Amino acid sequence: MSRLPTTGLIVAAKKRRTPLFKFHVDKSQLDDLFPHLRELQALAVRHGIRDIFQDNGGKYLQLALVTGLKLLASREGNDAVDETGREYELKTLNVDVVTSFTTHHHLNPTILKKYRRVDWVFAIYRGIELEAVYYMPVELLEPFFAKWEAKWLQDHKDINNPKIPMKFVLEHGIKVFPANEAAG
Amino acid sequence: MSRLPTTGLIVAAKKRRTPLFKFHVDKSQLDDLFPHLRELQALAVRHGIRDIFQDNGGKYLQLALVTGLKLLASREGNDAVDETGREYELKTLNVDVVTSFTTHHHLNPTILKKYRRVDWVFAIYRGIELEAVYYMPVELLEPFFAKWEAKWLQDHKDINNPKIPMKFVLEHGIKVFPANEAAG
Repeated sequence: MSRLPTTGLIVAAKKRRTPLFKFHVDKSQLDDLFPHLRELQALAVRHGIRDIFQDNGGKYLQLALVTGLKLLASREGNDAVDETGREYELKTLNVDVVTSFTTHHHLNPTILKKYRRVDWVFAIYRGIELEAVYYMPVELLEPFFAKWEAKWLQDHKDINNPKIPMKFVLEHGIKVFPANEAAG
Repeated sequence: MSRLPTTGLIVAAKKRRTPLFKFHVDKSQLDDLFPHLRELQALAVRHGIRDIFQDNGGKYLQLALVTGLKLLASREGNDAVDETGREYELKTLNVDVVTSFTTHHHLNPTILKKYRRVDWVFAIYRGIELEAVYYMPVELLEPFFAKWEAKWLQDHKDINNPKIPMKFVLEHGIKVFPANEAAG
């Protein structure tokens, strides 16, 4: 084992102790925050979110609470359902990082069929802060679907994350959050 | 627009108010938690994590603080570096949900080259709680790499998330967290 590096990580492994040699102030801050994270995770579980830190879990929780939608766990179905049983596809983006909504790592006719079945809800975050939520009737998205479908039929290859520009959503969607208080 | 559903979401959109009609208790709990989440996100940013709710951001923060590793932002390079400049590939799993570590949505020779360059660190979570961290010298992973490489060379198609079983990591890795206090 002579090629083992002489870092905190491996020295710690050999001495069988935790290699906490640099970040003790930050670690103690995290320890103080952790009870609140446990509370958030418990709240998330009540709304069908298994893990706040994955797949935008913490953001979907906020989105559910703001829109009143119930999140659906199944990978095959759509993402959320309202009190009338109508389902929705949900998409989020972080406007600090990107200006398009991504869709699916392996987009194909099965996914497109699912996408065409329901209206969509788009949530725009800045970092972890929810800035706006837009409702989009599905027929307005058909030009995107048609383009992706044509590409798939030509290449017979799953498409990696085709995108819907935020600009399109801002122009054609109906804003449901935040409320326009002036229009009361 | 007569096909618009008569749900809280759309009624709210038309009346231009927030459709907060069901989850006001949970929403108020989330509002109380939010200052702590902002604090966590600020801490995460100091460790190179742009978003705690995506790609296991909150978990990587905890992993960095526990191992003393510095996280690397670049998508092309490896995931973390120690104080000697040695880089690592990091993988996490939630043992409540899965029993294998996933690797890459589009595994190909470029990714394999990156994987073979450095030692690996595996973190096992139960929900959001970090249960254990294992160090793995990269040569022990070569049987997996060789198998994936052979498959790619045969099919000439990116591999979707080939896995490394947790069982293999528990058997062959070196535990670096939690400390084994008895062994002092």
